[in-house]
Amino acid sequence: MNIVLLDQKEIHDARIVLTDRRAKHLLKVLQVQVGDTVRIGIIDGPKGYGTVLALGRKYPFQVDLQVQCTEAMAEKPPIDLLLALPRPIMLKRIFSQAAALGVGTIFITHAQRVEKSFWSANLLQEEEYRPHLLAGLEQAVDTRVPAVHIYERFKPFIEDVIPEKINGYSHLLIAHPGSNASLNTVITERPERLLLAIGPEGGWIDYEINQFSACGFSAFSLGERILKVDTAVVALHGRLSERRESLSL
Amino acid sequence: MNIVLLDQKEIHDARIVLTDRRAKHLLKVLQVQVGDTVRIGIIDGPKGYGTVLALGRKYPFQVDLQVQCTEAMAEKPPIDLLLALPRPIMLKRIFSQAAALGVGTIFITHAQRVEKSFWSANLLQEEEYRPHLLAGLEQAVDTRVPAVHIYERFKPFIEDVIPEKINGYSHLLIAHPGSNASLNTVITERPERLLLAIGPEGGWIDYEINQFSACGFSAFSLGERILKVDTAVVALHGRLSERRESLSL
Repeated sequence: MNIVLLDQKEIHDARIVLTDRRAKHLLKVLQVQVGDTVRIGIIDGPKGYGTVLALGRKYPFQVDLQVQCTEAMAEKPPIDLLLALPRPIMLKRIFSQAAALGVGTIFITHAQRVEKSFWSANLLQEEEYRPHLLAGLEQAVDTRVPAVHIYERFKPFIEDVIPEKINGYSHLLIAHPGSNASLNTVITERPERLLLAIGPEGGWIDYEINQFSACGFSAFSLGERILKVDTAVVALHGRLSERRESLSL
Repeated sequence: MNIVLLDQKEIHDARIVLTDRRAKHLLKVLQVQVGDTVRIGIIDGPKGYGTVLALGRKYPFQVDLQVQCTEAMAEKPPIDLLLALPRPIMLKRIFSQAAALGVGTIFITHAQRVEKSFWSANLLQEEEYRPHLLAGLEQAVDTRVPAVHIYERFKPFIEDVIPEKINGYSHLLIAHPGSNASLNTVITERPERLLLAIGPEGGWIDYEINQFSACGFSAFSLGERILKVDTAVVALHGRLSERRESLSL
């Protein structure tokens, strides 16, 4: 936890009383003393510092902070993700890693090769996945929570939802091991906003690739290595970020 | 498992009898029949195909394969890693992800901010870590096992070992959040071979940075976000690969 994230509603007169895992972390890991300052951020808001006003060292732990915001929320990251629903244990890791790396929006939908049972995962409920997003932000010292949109049926998603969303992007990309194109060929100008689609284990089927293609997505491949989805998300985020930063405006 | 990895010593007269998890995977997941061919590779050797000669469907499972090699081992990947020993659970994931992404050699050493207790992990024994490397290769359809070299003492490593190794590299890089340089500034020509050093949670201390710097390592940063080591390894591998491929020879 490299920043303590606070909900605006928890703060009253620039003060907050922490009694949960955040208090425990401040006391047990950071071993704060009265008068110390710690990095804080308001969820989906500015960052700043908290000054320790009072401590309750014994269970139930308590830390009272005076909150001061000094830095505006970071801009929206330029990369959004579109995932075929991964195995829940993998999705959990993707949520926290994507939030740590910086992602604007995560779209999740179905695909032929997604196991139907994955759709009954508790993790698809906001109260279940939000803590994983916040864990990623706490790691990366960020306050902007990625938006998550989940569409269980592929056809209405690709036919009705995606056409309404794509105007917001300069680049629509789909990772597809069968493609002959590389990132260098599908990104030749600095992207403003990118939407990157990553398929399920086993890949997209031809029908799905064709549907994405009809919406304007360009397929590309990184070569012959087959990666797990969670590895692919992080590796591709790195590649897209590097490609984007290497192209001047 | 996208390729079945075989040890040369298991093969006799181009035939192999599998009775372990590989047999189970072929029978239960791939549901092979006599006459089917499956992708096989010799560990640290060529890739090819195995033709199913006979099956034992009941426990103990058995699959007899006729082995034919058709493709030379992939070239050594251009990226090597140097890690301050991470937490064992994280190192396990790094081994398989690095093998999947393609890494030539992984050096592991101590750093001031590495917890001493990590050095007693069983995972540091070859018979413990090798299965994780092979799992990454099985995922990525590769046969070349990354070399792993472990040095428990930092001082002899940086003073005696590293100076002997660095001639093999066109680029020596150290990820360091405190640096003002970016990848674009430390890699301006296509790298032949890269060695990338990644510190522990909490980062390298100044003494360590200075020692690496004296050996010729260039520090760079990806910006303000603080990543976990396993996320950083994959994201940086992606960035280095992209940077390398975008620079023509």
